[in-house]
This record gives sequence, C-alpha cells and structure tokens, in this order.
Amino acid sequence: MKINFENDYSSVAHKRVLEKLLSAADESNFGYGNDSHSKTATNLIKKQMKYEDCDIYYLSGGTAVNKLVITSFLKPFEAVICAETGHINVHETGAIEAGGHKVLTVKTNDGKLTTNLIEPILDEHNSSHMVKPKMVYISNTTELGGVYTKLELKRLKEFCTSRGVYLYVDGARLGSALCSTESDLTLEDLPYLCDVFYIGGTKSGALYGEALVLVNDDFKADMPYRIKNLGMLFAKGFNTALQFEALFEDGLFFDIAKHENKLSRYLYDELDELGFDFKDFWKSNQIFVIMDNNLIKKLYEKFSFIIWEKFDESSSVVRLVISFKTKKEDCDSFLKCVLNNMD
Amino acid sequence: MKINFENDYSSVAHKRVLEKLLSAADESNFGYGNDSHSKTATNLIKKQMKYEDCDIYYLSGGTAVNKLVITSFLKPFEAVICAETGHINVHETGAIEAGGHKVLTVKTNDGKLTTNLIEPILDEHNSSHMVKPKMVYISNTTELGGVYTKLELKRLKEFCTSRGVYLYVDGARLGSALCSTESDLTLEDLPYLCDVFYIGGTKSGALYGEALVLVNDDFKADMPYRIKNLGMLFAKGFNTALQFEALFEDGLFFDIAKHENKLSRYLYDELDELGFDFKDFWKSNQIFVIMDNNLIKKLYEKFSFIIWEKFDESSSVVRLVISFKTKKEDCDSFLKCVLNNMD
Amino acid sequence: MKINFENDYSSVAHKRVLEKLLSAADESNFGYGNDSHSKTATNLIKKQMKYEDCDIYYLSGGTAVNKLVITSFLKPFEAVICAETGHINVHETGAIEAGGHKVLTVKTNDGKLTTNLIEPILDEHNSSHMVKPKMVYISNTTELGGVYTKLELKRLKEFCTSRGVYLYVDGARLGSALCSTESDLTLEDLPYLCDVFYIGGTKSGALYGEALVLVNDDFKADMPYRIKNLGMLFAKGFNTALQFEALFEDGLFFDIAKHENKLSRYLYDELDELGFDFKDFWKSNQIFVIMDNNLIKKLYEKFSFIIWEKFDESSSVVRLVISFKTKKEDCDSFLKCVLNNMD
Amino acid sequence: MKINFENDYSSVAHKRVLEKLLSAADESNFGYGNDSHSKTATNLIKKQMKYEDCDIYYLSGGTAVNKLVITSFLKPFEAVICAETGHINVHETGAIEAGGHKVLTVKTNDGKLTTNLIEPILDEHNSSHMVKPKMVYISNTTELGGVYTKLELKRLKEFCTSRGVYLYVDGARLGSALCSTESDLTLEDLPYLCDVFYIGGTKSGALYGEALVLVNDDFKADMPYRIKNLGMLFAKGFNTALQFEALFEDGLFFDIAKHENKLSRYLYDELDELGFDFKDFWKSNQIFVIMDNNLIKKLYEKFSFIIWEKFDESSSVVRLVISFKTKKEDCDSFLKCVLNNMD
Repeated sequence: MKINFENDYSSVAHKRVLEKLLSAADESNFGYGNDSHSKTATNLIKKQMKYEDCDIYYLSGGTAVNKLVITSFLKPFEAVICAETGHINVHETGAIEAGGHKVLTVKTNDGKLTTNLIEPILDEHNSSHMVKPKMVYISNTTELGGVYTKLELKRLKEFCTSRGVYLYVDGARLGSALCSTESDLTLEDLPYLCDVFYIGGTKSGALYGEALVLVNDDFKADMPYRIKNLGMLFAKGFNTALQFEALFEDGLFFDIAKHENKLSRYLYDELDELGFDFKDFWKSNQIFVIMDNNLIKKLYEKFSFIIWEKFDESSSVVRLVISFKTKKEDCDSFLKCVLNNMD
Repeated sequence: MKINFENDYSSVAHKRVLEKLLSAADESNFGYGNDSHSKTATNLIKKQMKYEDCDIYYLSGGTAVNKLVITSFLKPFEAVICAETGHINVHETGAIEAGGHKVLTVKTNDGKLTTNLIEPILDEHNSSHMVKPKMVYISNTTELGGVYTKLELKRLKEFCTSRGVYLYVDGARLGSALCSTESDLTLEDLPYLCDVFYIGGTKSGALYGEALVLVNDDFKADMPYRIKNLGMLFAKGFNTALQFEALFEDGLFFDIAKHENKLSRYLYDELDELGFDFKDFWKSNQIFVIMDNNLIKKLYEKFSFIIWEKFDESSSVVRLVISFKTKKEDCDSFLKCVLNNMD
Repeated sequence: MKINFENDYSSVAHKRVLEKLLSAADESNFGYGNDSHSKTATNLIKKQMKYEDCDIYYLSGGTAVNKLVITSFLKPFEAVICAETGHINVHETGAIEAGGHKVLTVKTNDGKLTTNLIEPILDEHNSSHMVKPKMVYISNTTELGGVYTKLELKRLKEFCTSRGVYLYVDGARLGSALCSTESDLTLEDLPYLCDVFYIGGTKSGALYGEALVLVNDDFKADMPYRIKNLGMLFAKGFNTALQFEALFEDGLFFDIAKHENKLSRYLYDELDELGFDFKDFWKSNQIFVIMDNNLIKKLYEKFSFIIWEKFDESSSVVRLVISFKTKKEDCDSFLKCVLNNMD
Repeated sequence: MKINFENDYSSVAHKRVLEKLLSAADESNFGYGNDSHSKTATNLIKKQMKYEDCDIYYLSGGTAVNKLVITSFLKPFEAVICAETGHINVHETGAIEAGGHKVLTVKTNDGKLTTNLIEPILDEHNSSHMVKPKMVYISNTTELGGVYTKLELKRLKEFCTSRGVYLYVDGARLGSALCSTESDLTLEDLPYLCDVFYIGGTKSGALYGEALVLVNDDFKADMPYRIKNLGMLFAKGFNTALQFEALFEDGLFFDIAKHENKLSRYLYDELDELGFDFKDFWKSNQIFVIMDNNLIKKLYEKFSFIIWEKFDESSSVVRLVISFKTKKEDCDSFLKCVLNNMD
C-alpha cells in the first residue's frame, strides 16, 4: 500500500469517532434528527462558536450541502458568484445548475474572492433580461489551499450586505483554515461574517458528514422541508450527530486540523529548504509543489498524490494533502525519497 | 428508556457492521466509490443474486434512492404510478415532484399494486396534453407491511414490459420481504422481475446506506453523473460499502430479517390468541393491531410505537415494528403489559 | 365545414381585435412590454377594476400563466391544492410538477372548491416529511362550466388568508363567469378576493394572450425575471397589449361574454324544453347535455363538439361551447337537427 | 417618433402577415396545432428546404425555443457549449440553467464557434465529477451580426457528430444570414448540417412566432409533450402557422431579409466612405459602427439605436439594425444627420 498524500478522505474515520458510535450501540434513539445526540452536538458547536441564534443540520457531504444551501437561498432567476476554480463550478457535475441556478465565475489568481472581483458582476447584471446575482460562494480553505483572514471575510460580508447579496462559506476543510497560522479567523467569528456555512466532517476524521450552520433567519423555517425534499435527510440522524459530538466534545476537530497543518508546514519548509518552488506560500493542509516529472515518477512508486497541473515541459505541480492519519514518518519517507531522486 | 417498537432505525448499527468498519480503520482507500470494498460488496451481492449484469451503487437513504432512480429514468413529462399509500406519494415532501415528475396514485386495499389497478391509468393517459405514465413504483415490503409473491411480481413485470413501462422496487425493508414465509420471492428473482431496485441497509442494521441495483442497461452510463449531480456521492464510498460487506459476507442481512420476522410473527400470534384484530394478516416485521385507546395509553408508558390511524371512537390501529435489536423478552414484556391491562 | 360547438378557440380573432392591430401597423414601439400599448391596456384594465395597486403582464396562454404563477409563488416543497378536475391536474402534461410542485387534489361534485374541501388537506399536511400546501387554485368558470359567486369566493379568500395560503383564480373563461346571471361577482371584486388571477384573452376573441393580474405585493419585483426565465416574454409585447386594448377600450370583452352566455342559455333552455337532462344547471358558455348516442352520431355529421363522458350504455354527455363567432342561427340549426332526429 | 434603428421587432407585423390573418377570419380551425394551416405552413417550409424527414413546431419566441430545445435534448448532467456572447448565456435570465443545464462558454473574437474552440472543452470534461458537454449552440446570424458559411457549418457538424454532440442553430435572424452575400449557406443545407434549428419569425415580419425544425429523430416523439409541459403550446396554433404561410408561400421571408441586408449594406458602405470604423465587416442586417460620443448624442435626438459598448474615452460602438420597415430614406436621413454633425 502506497503512503497517502492524495487526499484527506481515504481512511474510515478517526478512532475516537468510531469509539463514540460504539459507545452508543445499545441506545434507542428517535429518528430523523429528533434525537438527543443531535441536540448535544448542536449545543457543543454553538458553545464553541459562542453563538446561539442559528440552526445546525447534519448532512452527508459537501456537494449535498452546497446544493441544499444554494437552491434554498436562491429563486430560479438568481445566480451565485464564485471563483472560476470554485468547487461548485468545476467538480459538482452541474449540481447547482441542475437545481436551477447559474454559476457566475470570476478569474482569480489564488481562488479567493474580493469585493473588487465581485462588484463588476453585480454592476453588469442590471436588468430582468439577465440573471440576478444574489449569493457569493467562497471556500475556506479554498480549492487551492488558501485561507481568508478575519479582515478579508469582514470586508466581503459588509460588501455583500450592502448589496443585498448572501455570503456562503463552504467549509469542507474549515478546520485547517481556522487553525492556520496564516489566518486569525476563528469559529466564533463565522456566524457574524456570513449568512450560512458548513463545518466539514468528511475531511476531518468523520466517516462522513458535514454540519450546516444556518445563521440567516429567513431560511430557517424552510430548511427541514428542503432537506427532506432533496432526499438528504438521514433516518438515523443520530449517527451523524454522534460523530460531531466526538469531534467537538474535547476539541478533536481542532486537534486534527492542527496536526495536519503542522505536518504540512513541516513538509513545505523541508521542500522549500531543498530548493523547490510552490504554486503559493503555505497556508493549510494542502501544498502545491513544483517538481520535475522524472522525480514525480519515482515518488509515485511509493506515494499516492495528485498531479494538479502541468507547470512546463519537464515539470508539474503536485498536490500533497495531509490527513489526520498522516504521520511525521510519512513526511520523512517522502522527503528522503525526494532527496534520493533529485539530480 | 422505553422499549422500542416504533421503528427499525433507532439503533446505531448492528455490532458486526461496526466491527467491520473498525477492522478497516488503518486502511487507505480510493475515494468516490473507486475502492476495493465497493468492489467486494458488489461482488458479494451479485453472487447472492447469481446475477452479474447489473451495476450497484451505495447511497445514503431511501428517499435519496427514490429521487435518484425516478428522476434518472423519467423525462420531464413522464410520470410514476404508485399506491396512494406509497412512500414517494406521502412522506417524501414532494421529492419526486421537485425532480419534475407527477406521481399518479391508485387507491388500494393493502398498499399493493396489480395490473388491474395500473391498466386504467395507462389507458386514460393517451394524449400529449396529459403526462405519460412511464414507471411503476412498488415497495416490498409495502408501507403496510405487505409482501409480493414471485407470481405477483412476475405478472407486474410482464405487464409493465408489454406496455413499455419501467418497474421499480423500493426495498427499504427488502430483507423482511424476502425472508417472509408469506412470499416465495428471493433475491435471485429480483433482477429478472424489475428494472431497478434497492436493498435497504438503514432499516437492516447499517449505520445508514442503501444498495441500488441497476439492471436496465439504458441508464447505466448515466448513473455516476446523476449521483454526483444530485449531491448523493459519498467521498468515502468505502464506508458504505464496508457495511454491505458485513451484511452480505456471512448472510447477516438475511439473519437479521429472519430474526425480525420470527419475533414479529410471535407477537402477532400471541396477540391473535388474546383476541386482537389486525389491519391485515401477518406478513413481515411490521404488524398493525387494533387496540382499545385505554390499553394503548397504558402500553405507551413503557413502550414506544406509532398510532397508525383511528379505528373507531374507542380504538386505534397500532403499528409494532421489530428491529434487529428487538429481543424475545421485549415482546414478552409487551404481551404481559397487554394482559395486565385488558379489561 | 361543420358548425362549431367544440370550443371557443377555433377562430382567428374577433374583427375588432384584428382591426386594432392593423391600426397600429405603422408604429414603432419599444420591445419587451416597455411600450405605450402595454401601459394603455394596463390602465384600461385597472380602470375597469377600479384598482390601481397591481401589476399586469401579457402572456401567451393559460398553461403558461398557470406554470408561471404557481412556480413563482411556491417554494420547491410547497404544493397547490385544486379540484381533481382542475386543468393543472389533468391537462397540462405535468407542467406544474415539472416546475417542482405537487398538485394535491380534492374530489368535487362540480369542479368547485370550498373551505370544507380544502381544510382537511391543510390539516393532514402537518410535518416536514410531507409537502406544505401553500396555494389554492380555482378556475372561474370551472372546467365544468360552473361559476363562483362573490360570497363563495369571499369565503375561500378569507379562509386562505387565515391559513397563510395563496388563492389563485384561473380565468381562462373569466369573461363568461363575470357575465353569468348565476353569479354576482364582478371584475372590481377580484383584486380583493384573490392574490393573483388572469383574464383570458385566447377564449375571448384574441389571437392569443392572457392578462395576468398580480395583486400580492410579495411577488411583484420577481415577476419580470420569472417571465423571461421561463421563456415567456414576448419581444413584441405591444402586439398582445393591443389586443387587450381592443377588448377593454369599449367593453368588447364583456360584450363577447354576454353574447356567449345569452346564446348558451338559449340553447340550454330550448334543449331543456325538449326534455333533455344536463350534467348541471346552466351557468356559462359551456353546457353539458345528456344525449342518446344515435342522436349524437347524427348531430356529429353537421356539428363539431366533444363527447365529454359516457353517461350510460346508450347515452353520453355532450359538451357544447358557444364562442364569439357563434350565431343564433347556428343554435337553431342545431336544435332543428335535434328535433329531426329525436325518436 | 424617432426613426428606428434600434431593433427589428418594433413594428406590429408585415402587411402581408396581417392580411393573411384577416383572410382566415371566418374559418373554424382545430386547436393545438392540429389544423390545416399548420400542415400547410409545414409543407411550405419543407418544400423550401427540399427536406421531408423533420417535424416543425410553431412557438412564441426565441428564448422559449432555446429553452425547449436544450432542455429536451439534454439530460440533467449534460451541458451546452456556446460563445461567451451567446444569447442563452447572457440575455435569457438563466432560462437554460433554470431548466437544469450548465452553459459552458468560450471566448471568441466575433461570436462564432469553431472546432478549435470547442475541442478543449470536450477534452477537459472527462469525468463524472464534471458536467458532460452534449450540445453546441450557435446563432446564425450571431449576436454580433456574423454569419456562418456552408463550409464552416459543415466542419462544426462533422466534428459534433464525431464527438457525439448535438448541434443546434438559433435562427432568430436566420433570414438575414441565409440572404447574406457573405455566406453561401441556404435553407436547403440546414437539415443536413445540424440536429435542430429554428426559423425566426418575430424578427422577420411576424406578429410573433418561430418555426422550430426538428431533424434528429431521437427527440421527435417527445416534442409535443415537452411543448405542452413547458406551457408553450398555443391553443390557436393556426394563428402562428398562418403567419408562416404568409412568410413562405411567396418568398416573403427571403424578400424581407434581402431588403434588410441591402439597406444595411448601403448604410455600411456609406459610413465606410465617410471614414467610420466598424467592429467587424458587414455581414447582415446589424452593423456595429464606432462613433464619437458627441455625434451619437446628436443622432440620438432623431434616431433610436443601442450603444453597444464603450470603444474608448470619446467614442462608442453603436448598433444599427435594419428591419422590414426601414426605408432607404431612413438611411439617408441618418447619413445626412451624420454628415451635418461630423467635425
């Protein structure tokens, strides 16, 4: 078996997540999210956020949440704005359009949106012969491993509010973003800085599952209907909630993220030392390093990872992802293999 | 904690399902269903069916599968026929209509469809000013606990084929149906007797999850796209597959069903002996018994169950569901409580 | 050419409608409804209603308006209630469901809804596992030629308001309804007695076209976007508006309806005198008479009409529709043919 | 009233179209397109095309046809490719996305697609995590007044066929394209060079209406259902058909186009002579001329037209459209006004 740097969703689940499920194996719980574990998990998350006035739902995966949120917030003629690299634009098989909405895209350098990038789109769409942009979608971390600072997010939110546009944060890798030393953003800030976001569990040690945090009051009453209507309601809601209990009762969610960030930074620094260039400076649990194609070939014998894109004729950008299962020894094996195969 | 007769999805999961997940905890697997466990589970199910020429997908829940199948098979102007009591008609918050399709309903005595009930609907819809019925949806077991015999299903399938209509079997409780002494239908028969069906895991001891068995060739190429497009693709597909491995590698799926049926039959027979009437004769792991409202009140102190419907001024139909967790002692406690509180 | 009693949309248009278009043939007008004729027609209709606070849009046909209104007012999990005979339920090829909404139906004797028929549906749908009924759809005249009185409509509206449900009146044959001697309802009453309705032009002498009158403020800002988004916006909006100018500038709309009602009442009375039975008492420009199948066969040689349904082994219900083109002589020819062929 | 160069849909209809409707005013016709005029118009168009094996439908407008065709041909996860300037991308308020489909766009210089522009999109979309491009949409004339030659269209069609992709031609201004001296394409060629196209009536002298020509056999049986399901079926189908009778019985459709092209070429040549630059060389009834903003201001007092886009600080691109109503005197007035106001 190759050592995994391919993604952060290749292992069953964190040990403590599984133990939590085992510990509840003899219980009898109410169905459809009306159980005590859903309440407990929600209280744990609210306590962590120090924010009460929101609803929390437990769903199966990121595309599901994106589809649910965007199609619940928008009317048929309203559109969502995202970076050209946004997950909803590229890698969801038209899930948002299948739900009826145009995805308006902006070219970016680093996958991050700014008010400067959004404003022209809002200004151009000024008649009923065009879609009406009504939501901004960002990912934190971005698809390219970037993170938003508190100030950056604040500016986005204020601008969105001033233009009557919703702000939605896709948090598939929110843990890594919140624990990045490159950002001062905390979970406590988020309810004030967007209308809705989700806390990714799938890529943070859960078997599956994301926690949708709905802040905007206007959509609270509809959400239970929408979840069922989209076929996204788990009969055994408690099984998802139990996993978020495990992630939030003793800080496991953040411990996993810190572990990932620490190791990815280590890997980044060592590769930097060895003279490698990167697509961008280190930010989170994904790093994008430029390597010679021959070296990549050698590494690929022992390690799994994704070749992100061609860099030039002889080299490519390689994506390395650190997961909760990655060990320092894995990184050292990788670095050793690099050293042994450099010209 | 009350003793549960409310449903078959109130417990985390069967012990052996959880053990299976634990046993794979150190593995690294490919994402999105491209893993070895998905292959293994699929091979186990195909072997059990003695049928190779089908595709199997692992999904989150029953409404998800219903929405996926029906909206993938039908064009926008095509409709699905089901019993008025059909789950897709009553309890899915318009999931099928939200996907664009009319649900045409038939009144039935017992929740089961027959060619006699379907034919008039097909005949009436004879112009492009009306929807075109193109699929028949049945549940086995039905929402009222009924089961289809092999002959009944064969007749339905032949009729559907003769009229160019697809037949889809919702198998949320397929295990109980296949292990009912009231039906000779087996899993081996199913691929020949419908276009598509699913094997319910959620109500058969899994944490969550249903196995969609796609037999009709015309929709095989589309299905991976549709699953992603509907937000229903698990990143960690192996976690669902592992559960179906546990259910099918040593016959656990059938053992659970037999256990449920045996106990529900026991409960039925004993209540019958005590003079109670039922909505219908015993068929599967759900029984519907008519009880005096005062007795119901007493029972409700110790047992959880659903009052299905009013029977007359003083009595109601009570639904009792046996799950993999139910023990003979639970049934005996219930019977004892009945005895103690009968007039 | 047979004499037409088949429908009220078999002739090109009323002479004065065509003349109106001709009179404007040399003009140059703004596109997409931003023209002076749209303003004029709207002012004429508002003046006739003595009601200013509404928006009026000119659309192509009844199913278009039904689809537009219902899918604009409802969220994906919300449903519309109508009579089992309702046009949206039977004869629109699933247009409403294709727009995402369940149509909940009520059996009625005469195609008319009452609060007694609606209330149980609202009461039953009490959880997020079921659709949420949010609109009541009625037709006036109904699909069976019936009409609502002012009191009947007032009671419906008050009930709908008390339950937070919208009331929508399909006015494909609104002219005939408003001019029926069996109803005291006027166009002035309508804005107060529903949230939205349309004034049918197609069946009242126009080439095509319906005037949607939107009273409920909540949907006014969205409507231009929705119309374009559904592909329903005419580039030459003035051509539809010109026709409504013709219909409303000198009362032509009402004159046509009165003409139709008068002749249909004449036909009804004469047939009544001859001893025929009817499905219902006369109300509007459609009458439903029970005739012997042999007589029907004879009549069908000279006259076009629809056999609505079988009555018994030897007789059927025949629908006779009076249009703006029907003359008294046509009715007399029909009556004479009846007389000559009665046993 | 200003002289109109704003668009080709500002006049009621061509005199002969109106006369045709008048000539049929005393007829009684079958509803919903089952009338003799629909047959006649279809035969006229088929005869003109010298092509029998296609179905023709008469619809209300361009966005309606685009929505109908694209959502009928594509499955929910399939996408349509068009130029960034494509009408479906920019000016239909998300009609295609509301129907469930992603619009994939390509930057072009002139609004025209080539195989070189399309191929990379087809190649990139190679997994079920992305939409599947399945249709190419072009406009002829393009939104920028361009036209396709027979060879250009042939190459596109062959490429599309080789890649299993449908080709759809939006013919809102097809008349002008087919009569352009810059293209050798004829109506006879079209059925062989695409799967489906429409012949625009709205911008060619009709009151409203487009003729959809469906060549691809796979979608013929569905089309009547889809038209009704989308609310696009006219009750008085004969009124649309009558207009196409007028346009095609004596070549009026082509006469109008030739008239428009001749005058637009005249205007182009004269402006060229006066030293003006253009966005592109003359092709059809739309010309895009670069003018000083002061001159534009002056012209705008007497003439209506659209300022297409900013050119530089002191000048803009002006769109001038010639319609069937435009006279040589109108062009001369315009030219005179230009002359009088040039520096």
